[in-house]
Amino acid sequence: MKKRSVDLNSDMGEGFGPWKIGDGVDEDIMPLISSANIATGFHAGDPNIMARTVQLAKQAGVGIGAHPGFRDLVGFGRRNITETPQALVNDIVFQLGALREFARLYHVSVQHVKPHGALYMLAARDEALSRLLIETLQALDPTLLLYCMEASVTYRIARELGQPVIREFYADRDYDRSGSIVFTRHVARLDPAHVAAKVLRACVEGRVTTVDGDDIDIDFDSVCIHSDTPGAFKLVEATRAALTSHDIRVAAPVYTIAR
Amino acid sequence: MKKRSVDLNSDMGEGFGPWKIGDGVDEDIMPLISSANIATGFHAGDPNIMARTVQLAKQAGVGIGAHPGFRDLVGFGRRNITETPQALVNDIVFQLGALREFARLYHVSVQHVKPHGALYMLAARDEALSRLLIETLQALDPTLLLYCMEASVTYRIARELGQPVIREFYADRDYDRSGSIVFTRHVARLDPAHVAAKVLRACVEGRVTTVDGDDIDIDFDSVCIHSDTPGAFKLVEATRAALTSHDIRVAAPVYTIAR
Amino acid sequence: MKKRSVDLNSDMGEGFGPWKIGDGVDEDIMPLISSANIATGFHAGDPNIMARTVQLAKQAGVGIGAHPGFRDLVGFGRRNITETPQALVNDIVFQLGALREFARLYHVSVQHVKPHGALYMLAARDEALSRLLIETLQALDPTLLLYCMEASVTYRIARELGQPVIREFYADRDYDRSGSIVFTRHVARLDPAHVAAKVLRACVEGRVTTVDGDDIDIDFDSVCIHSDTPGAFKLVEATRAALTSHDIRVAAPVYTIAR
Amino acid sequence: MKKRSVDLNSDMGEGFGPWKIGDGVDEDIMPLISSANIATGFHAGDPNIMARTVQLAKQAGVGIGAHPGFRDLVGFGRRNITETPQALVNDIVFQLGALREFARLYHVSVQHVKPHGALYMLAARDEALSRLLIETLQALDPTLLLYCMEASVTYRIARELGQPVIREFYADRDYDRSGSIVFTRHVARLDPAHVAAKVLRACVEGRVTTVDGDDIDIDFDSVCIHSDTPGAFKLVEATRAALTSHDIRVAAPVYTIAR
Repeated sequence: MKKRSVDLNSDMGEGFGPWKIGDGVDEDIMPLISSANIATGFHAGDPNIMARTVQLAKQAGVGIGAHPGFRDLVGFGRRNITETPQALVNDIVFQLGALREFARLYHVSVQHVKPHGALYMLAARDEALSRLLIETLQALDPTLLLYCMEASVTYRIARELGQPVIREFYADRDYDRSGSIVFTRHVARLDPAHVAAKVLRACVEGRVTTVDGDDIDIDFDSVCIHSDTPGAFKLVEATRAALTSHDIRVAAPVYTIAR
Repeated sequence: MKKRSVDLNSDMGEGFGPWKIGDGVDEDIMPLISSANIATGFHAGDPNIMARTVQLAKQAGVGIGAHPGFRDLVGFGRRNITETPQALVNDIVFQLGALREFARLYHVSVQHVKPHGALYMLAARDEALSRLLIETLQALDPTLLLYCMEASVTYRIARELGQPVIREFYADRDYDRSGSIVFTRHVARLDPAHVAAKVLRACVEGRVTTVDGDDIDIDFDSVCIHSDTPGAFKLVEATRAALTSHDIRVAAPVYTIAR
Repeated sequence: MKKRSVDLNSDMGEGFGPWKIGDGVDEDIMPLISSANIATGFHAGDPNIMARTVQLAKQAGVGIGAHPGFRDLVGFGRRNITETPQALVNDIVFQLGALREFARLYHVSVQHVKPHGALYMLAARDEALSRLLIETLQALDPTLLLYCMEASVTYRIARELGQPVIREFYADRDYDRSGSIVFTRHVARLDPAHVAAKVLRACVEGRVTTVDGDDIDIDFDSVCIHSDTPGAFKLVEATRAALTSHDIRVAAPVYTIAR
Repeated sequence: MKKRSVDLNSDMGEGFGPWKIGDGVDEDIMPLISSANIATGFHAGDPNIMARTVQLAKQAGVGIGAHPGFRDLVGFGRRNITETPQALVNDIVFQLGALREFARLYHVSVQHVKPHGALYMLAARDEALSRLLIETLQALDPTLLLYCMEASVTYRIARELGQPVIREFYADRDYDRSGSIVFTRHVARLDPAHVAAKVLRACVEGRVTTVDGDDIDIDFDSVCIHSDTPGAFKLVEATRAALTSHDIRVAAPVYTIAR
């Protein structure tokens, strides 16, 4: 049951011009993670920051992913906006391409796609959106890993259509009984030791306690810690330390997983 | 001297959501041109419009180009913004990549890059910007055609570095004695017959009359008519008719030109 | 029953930089209406256009209103965005103030407030939003007329709190049985004679036919024709002609209505 | 020569949605200053933040000013954008009005206007812009205090036209020999003791050392410390302590100054 290796992903490059979100510093967090979800300009990120973040990830040997969101800078992509699946998928195509060009410039490849915030949660429950997104990814690149929750429509359809998929565990979010996370626009400061223990238990026992106090089974391939959660660096540091001290290696997902 | 073939390019996809610029309708103009400069989201264009415009160009057999501009929707990319060459080139990389992803989705390739408006004019006179742009294009794709004026720093450096380059003739702009165009934020309605005659003379005699009334020599590979010039469709229609009636074929540039 | 006078309102100033929506020209429509809803920068409108539109309305003797929308240029304010009532009311306060400053500069006063598009429809059904908006208007200016539908929460609460309210009839939208309009992001071209007849009947008989083919009673103080409905000028022209030829005067609402 | 009282101003409300600039916290800095330049949405600031900042200033008894900038969020208003004086003044009118509406809502008045960043520096050297701005302020409110440098066109024209004007001393910027500040897009961390001593000397001796090492005379009514300068709180705290320990009172400007 116990994992021997797990991916650790975090959102990177979530600035805009001189603007910042959260107190996490990419330069500090990047060396501790194995996959970076790089903001692609709609909810956060700009071309300068994307260029720098791709280089930073490359230097750290971290897998690069596109992190497209709603076009909603003021809401940081955490608000729902009524839109058609086609328009949202076009938004994702645009953002993915923008990141890919920087990856090409710095001679790295894009490993994965992970929608951001409200777009991720919308896809998790909206079959038309997930289906169109996955069909489009298959047309663009059938090897791109799609990050999502196991308890989501996205996961089911990715499996159905054969797109490789990475199931996430959210270290800094609460779970409900369905195995889905409780979405929030504002996240409180968390105790690093508590977060690390929660992740470790999920990796070793495959269990997590929900907001209601129940324990549920959980399985996943990657642990996510948001860089805009207050004190993010300490959370990542404590989590990585807990994992490695229990002989669980932090490593980007290997795409040979037969699913 | 007389040309047997010339490229005819126009800016396409210059909408934003439901917003329009000019009275040109892409569906009308696209079948008459040979190369489309597709707006890539910063001065105009959005993911839905880019998807539609790439498909429209593909259907018409028209060469597809990225048309990146300053991040300036309210100014339609026609205002100068003080920025470093590196930041501006990063903006172009971002926009080029976004378009390329739609091209990949619809199984076409991107033929060219043409900066828009104030960015085009800035590159024409700014050596650091042109050099960094061209070095970056060479790293990304040494076969991408770069559209510019012959009377520009951009042209000189593209030749120096070996990036294939397409020299433009502006049907709907005035020329000064240096062979450069007189930049304007607002363009008046023009007479289609006059514009067509100006283009035809340039193609046949290699001459154009400047704003000062002098004649200068001009050489070029492509004729540009802006789709936001009032009455653009009539200008394109009259120009194409004049060219074909004089046995000058309208065709996308062939990239075998030894430069 | 028959009205002797009715207000005729239209959205004015719905440009952004050089961008346009619809084919209506403000200069043509303004002299035909009695109240102008001036876009205040979030879904449409910019400071230059606001300055010009306030002057245009003043010259035509037309009542000036703020037309605040969601901060959503790409969606033209016609998409819902999940937001708190407080944040939306702050958006409205901001936009109202911006317009008021131009009104002050040109020595006119702001007559009314009319939320735009999806924000108008949201307020129509959301009691918390309507209540907070109206309480805020009362703190800012208890004489500002609030435009809304009679079949709305907004109307009920404005009456309850004593804010003067103008009930609208939508000439270019379909009605459902509840007396509410059927919201749409895209509006088809309409027949001017049909629209004028619909308005005239509503003014004379107080009846309108719903999308289901039923007739319902309708009462109102103002007729709205959207300037971005295709062919808007013809619709306004035909409607005004029908009204005046039946001795129904087009005039801005007089604020002495004891409610 | 020594001042008995001086205004201390800082930029407040420079957030955007959840985005932050700098490490200064408004809640900490506000009680230490006497005038707040509140960001009005174009380079920073949004309606929620404006509402909160106006309330914060009111609670602290701090004078409220509008701090309008270029419409340039990504550049934080620190880049020049080519625009006409009329368009820039319309931008300022819009932003001033937006702030005034929040001031009205919370029953305070707007004391001053201070253009931000590149717009402030542009006005300082551009006579057409300064003249149109001041003529417009006189039409809107001849008692609004205009913040500027003594070594500026803005100051000269404000005096000429009779608009009350507050001359600033920049604690966290370098001076050149003309008495103008050296504009920068990025500001380094400064030593609070050094900054406090610089301000104190300017208040007591009326002298400041330029970037070239010379001493020049300087006179002013207000000391500015930018809240986005790294370590801003410590700078404000040290400066205020130095002033009060030398019996120089920190107080908003009194508008009775006969100029």
